[in-house]
Amino acid sequence: MPSSYRNFRQSVPWLILSLEAVFIILFNIWFPYEGELMKSYPAFQDVNHMMIFGFGFYLMFLKRYGFSTTGFNLLLIVLGVQCSMLIDTFLLLLQEKNKHHLERLIEAAMSMTAVVISTGAVLGKANPVQLILMTVLELIVFRMSRWMNVTFLQVTDSISMMHVHLFGAYFGLAFSSCFSEPSPRTDKNARTPKSDLLSMLGTLFLWVFWPSFNSVLSDSKWRAIYNTYFGLAVSAVTAFALSVLTTKDGKFRMCHIHSAVLAGGVAVGYAAHSIKYPWIAMVLGLLASVIAILGSYCSQRCLNPPLKLHDTSGVHFTFGMPAVLGALAQVVLLIIKNWNNLSSLGYLVMIQVGAFCVTISVALLTGLIAGLILNLRLFKTIPVSKYFEDQFYWEFPHLAVGF
Amino acid sequence: MPSSYRNFRQSVPWLILSLEAVFIILFNIWFPYEGELMKSYPAFQDVNHMMIFGFGFYLMFLKRYGFSTTGFNLLLIVLGVQCSMLIDTFLLLLQEKNKHHLERLIEAAMSMTAVVISTGAVLGKANPVQLILMTVLELIVFRMSRWMNVTFLQVTDSISMMHVHLFGAYFGLAFSSCFSEPSPRTDKNARTPKSDLLSMLGTLFLWVFWPSFNSVLSDSKWRAIYNTYFGLAVSAVTAFALSVLTTKDGKFRMCHIHSAVLAGGVAVGYAAHSIKYPWIAMVLGLLASVIAILGSYCSQRCLNPPLKLHDTSGVHFTFGMPAVLGALAQVVLLIIKNWNNLSSLGYLVMIQVGAFCVTISVALLTGLIAGLILNLRLFKTIPVSKYFEDQFYWEFPHLAVGF
Amino acid sequence: MPSSYRNFRQSVPWLILSLEAVFIILFNIWFPYEGELMKSYPAFQDVNHMMIFGFGFYLMFLKRYGFSTTGFNLLLIVLGVQCSMLIDTFLLLLQEKNKHHLERLIEAAMSMTAVVISTGAVLGKANPVQLILMTVLELIVFRMSRWMNVTFLQVTDSISMMHVHLFGAYFGLAFSSCFSEPSPRTDKNARTPKSDLLSMLGTLFLWVFWPSFNSVLSDSKWRAIYNTYFGLAVSAVTAFALSVLTTKDGKFRMCHIHSAVLAGGVAVGYAAHSIKYPWIAMVLGLLASVIAILGSYCSQRCLNPPLKLHDTSGVHFTFGMPAVLGALAQVVLLIIKNWNNLSSLGYLVMIQVGAFCVTISVALLTGLIAGLILNLRLFKTIPVSKYFEDQFYWEFPHLAVGF
Repeated sequence: MPSSYRNFRQSVPWLILSLEAVFIILFNIWFPYEGELMKSYPAFQDVNHMMIFGFGFYLMFLKRYGFSTTGFNLLLIVLGVQCSMLIDTFLLLLQEKNKHHLERLIEAAMSMTAVVISTGAVLGKANPVQLILMTVLELIVFRMSRWMNVTFLQVTDSISMMHVHLFGAYFGLAFSSCFSEPSPRTDKNARTPKSDLLSMLGTLFLWVFWPSFNSVLSDSKWRAIYNTYFGLAVSAVTAFALSVLTTKDGKFRMCHIHSAVLAGGVAVGYAAHSIKYPWIAMVLGLLASVIAILGSYCSQRCLNPPLKLHDTSGVHFTFGMPAVLGALAQVVLLIIKNWNNLSSLGYLVMIQVGAFCVTISVALLTGLIAGLILNLRLFKTIPVSKYFEDQFYWEFPHLAVGF
Repeated sequence: MPSSYRNFRQSVPWLILSLEAVFIILFNIWFPYEGELMKSYPAFQDVNHMMIFGFGFYLMFLKRYGFSTTGFNLLLIVLGVQCSMLIDTFLLLLQEKNKHHLERLIEAAMSMTAVVISTGAVLGKANPVQLILMTVLELIVFRMSRWMNVTFLQVTDSISMMHVHLFGAYFGLAFSSCFSEPSPRTDKNARTPKSDLLSMLGTLFLWVFWPSFNSVLSDSKWRAIYNTYFGLAVSAVTAFALSVLTTKDGKFRMCHIHSAVLAGGVAVGYAAHSIKYPWIAMVLGLLASVIAILGSYCSQRCLNPPLKLHDTSGVHFTFGMPAVLGALAQVVLLIIKNWNNLSSLGYLVMIQVGAFCVTISVALLTGLIAGLILNLRLFKTIPVSKYFEDQFYWEFPHLAVGF
Repeated sequence: MPSSYRNFRQSVPWLILSLEAVFIILFNIWFPYEGELMKSYPAFQDVNHMMIFGFGFYLMFLKRYGFSTTGFNLLLIVLGVQCSMLIDTFLLLLQEKNKHHLERLIEAAMSMTAVVISTGAVLGKANPVQLILMTVLELIVFRMSRWMNVTFLQVTDSISMMHVHLFGAYFGLAFSSCFSEPSPRTDKNARTPKSDLLSMLGTLFLWVFWPSFNSVLSDSKWRAIYNTYFGLAVSAVTAFALSVLTTKDGKFRMCHIHSAVLAGGVAVGYAAHSIKYPWIAMVLGLLASVIAILGSYCSQRCLNPPLKLHDTSGVHFTFGMPAVLGALAQVVLLIIKNWNNLSSLGYLVMIQVGAFCVTISVALLTGLIAGLILNLRLFKTIPVSKYFEDQFYWEFPHLAVGF
């Protein structure tokens, strides 16, 4: 065991420091400051809270993985935001465009959602080297996929950003499929009441700031806030009802609540700015919650075992499936709205379906490739017996003190 | 025991889903969107944080009731906000008035304070069916009581909203009086250091956002913020001093701190917009804290046993008594201000006293009626032996793992 | 033991209540309200969150001192903010100036940072009486030191406030040097995984709100936000890399992360408004993180034992050393910027160096004096065997229940 630690010492710090050196040099070349608008600062703060607290605690349900969850989450976000800003700036330089710095920072923070969701799928299984390289790869690929959507399919910038949940979930699933499954007899990936409560704290953070997330890049902010709030509210209500209906002895199950209360926010995301009546957002929230809970049931019984998938925090049914529903709903709403004008309708539908297909196929393909590359022996894949263990990465003050 | 679970499966989900169906249909009929003001969004966020985090964690002091506290809090809030918006819209339609959607949403979230406070009085004793029906009933009655105050007594809208703590506390007490008392030998309603710390986190959330709550509907926002901050500050200071003076061996008691630091915010609420000197708010905060701590002493010894009241989280002395003090202080301040003009003074005092009496009597009466109805056998009252137990409602991952 | 409790009952409440009475009387004399600007309220909220949640939980790493950490933090902040506003108002009256109330409130909250940092150095060692008197003394002395800087050295108001970390850290160290060291065999000041996680929550709160803190008094707010964000990001990245490099078996150490992720924010503070390129802030963040982690190593091995210092939460390397680095960096940046204009350069550098020397020497001197006075027997210094014990101050519901 000591040998594997020495290995981390030889890789993790140098990887981090050399990445950081590259970032500083590129920032040096590309970034002077300009005069800036201040009014988006609260919006940036809300997105930042979601990333740092929300996802940092949302994923903290594993009983022995709290340090790694919140620590690595912080590390990946600070690295990823810098990386994402540089990719964005590089693309803007190529296109000879310009954008306010704060907008770039907000978009960088939002793009990190994809990475954090993918992290959820390999939580406890990937080591820091793999996570850091995955972050850089995924951000580049996600930016490319957005660029393709915006350039070839004329999708607006804000809609292309809303694909972030879809991309993150399916990239994560494909990436996760390359890792060994944990032993079915282990209970190290179990939840405890304490870790579930901390995870609930994170879920509530995400729930509360989701309207800000969906509205930050939107043109009609207020409508996006309103629709997201109602979508989230109804998906929370439905989560409680369905949880009682689907568990064996008619009790609530905490992990249903965790995933289903957020499903509404994901599903409403695509169309949040354009839905004209709250009841539509409410119905969408209800359907998203149904899909999340049924999906949780199906994916654990029917889908994951044959595919040999292990999706630690259930990103497939929490973020993936509701995002598919949201994309579908957006198309249906487009069809209803443009029913009279059949000529433009086909074109509009084509664009949305195309953007969806591009995003999901790029995510699956590159996720798989990233997974295959990062599971080479070079990257010190951790043995299955060390999955879900803080002690593998962190010094513990007193190993035996009642965790 | 399994039979009682099956019963919940037959009631809870259908109750929730049918309520939600009614809400969606009514939203469908009543709510198109209009152009909206954005500037109140931060105010709405602050109120939302108070409800979701603040109360969700403030009430988390029972050692085995953490899941239910935070989970049911979320469920009741999302149901209640929708319900409250519909009641409000119905009344506005009757009166042929209009109001911005965001204002309605903020008022709906603020009205939920009454419900959450009432929940505190029956925490661990009422089942979800009872809580959901109580929410709907209480919101209707509270809106009626506000409507009576505004229509017949010409109280302003924002002052009538400040009765929310008073209404919530006394409705909750009357409601709670219809439930069986827990066995005095049980220690399931005990606190542990861990649960007390989480409850402290919730208390701090409430403390920090209270100035936003008191100022959100106010005309002179800044004065309301300032007065509330100083009222809260002095009540926190006084809480520490009095806690040492009243405990047996001169130590601090955590539950004193929890309730007394908030008392100042409640008491200042009524007059926050009109107090001209901070020292008045400070004195009010001091008195509120004294009342909360003495009230805690009295109600546990002299008041509750003869009345057979069991008030789990002490809403009587945390919210009820300071609200009475606040209403009294408002009248005293009115008298001082209008001393020269005796003719209008009588009228003004009459209005305030009238509004106070209407609110408290409606709260007590309807709370008692709601308690009597919801304790019919039809609603599956839970047995006293199952009070304060998460396991009665929630699946636990590993029942034995050290909670 | 009971005798020592009775002593606290005779001192703590009367000290608190008499202080509060003085405050109320002085507020009565000095404070009518005026019309106010509302737009700084979110800035005040951010600073308030940092103080109440951030520091309240940041210091919660001692396994048996959670109640005292968060409770006394609240008590000191509410007392200190009132005290600081009065000192400020007294000085403004002397100078016949005026300032908006909200600005005074924000400055009062910011000044409390010094006190909270000093508290960190004597965490678990000082009793409430000592802490309260230290708060009042330190706030007076810090205001004097700022006044000297502004009056004699023409430092701007906002820069003089940025000395708050420097002052707090060295005042705390000097103050701490007068307390007995804890027994080296005790493990009561150990960390547990649970307390480390709660401390991480506080660290993240501080991390997220630090850009607001550095920008609130600044003229070019946006630049301050941006520079602080990047400084913090790079110091977080570096913290992870260096932690692996410096621990025995190449693992991450949680307390490194806690202190080093914040070091960047401290170091960037002085120059945040004037740095023109983000890469400079990034390099500064990197250096600050290096200093914090090396400082942690050095001060525990070489510095503290000969000086008989015991710095419970490591304020020296978390806040002190990065602040020295920040002051140095500010001078270097001044030299680079004014290289052409040698005549004014000398003057500018003199001012900054002078302000630094004044602040640090006032802090060390008065910290030592305060420590000597407050360790007189009169103030009931707590015995070493009772260090780091919540039970010495707080009633525990059930002493034996698994903390």
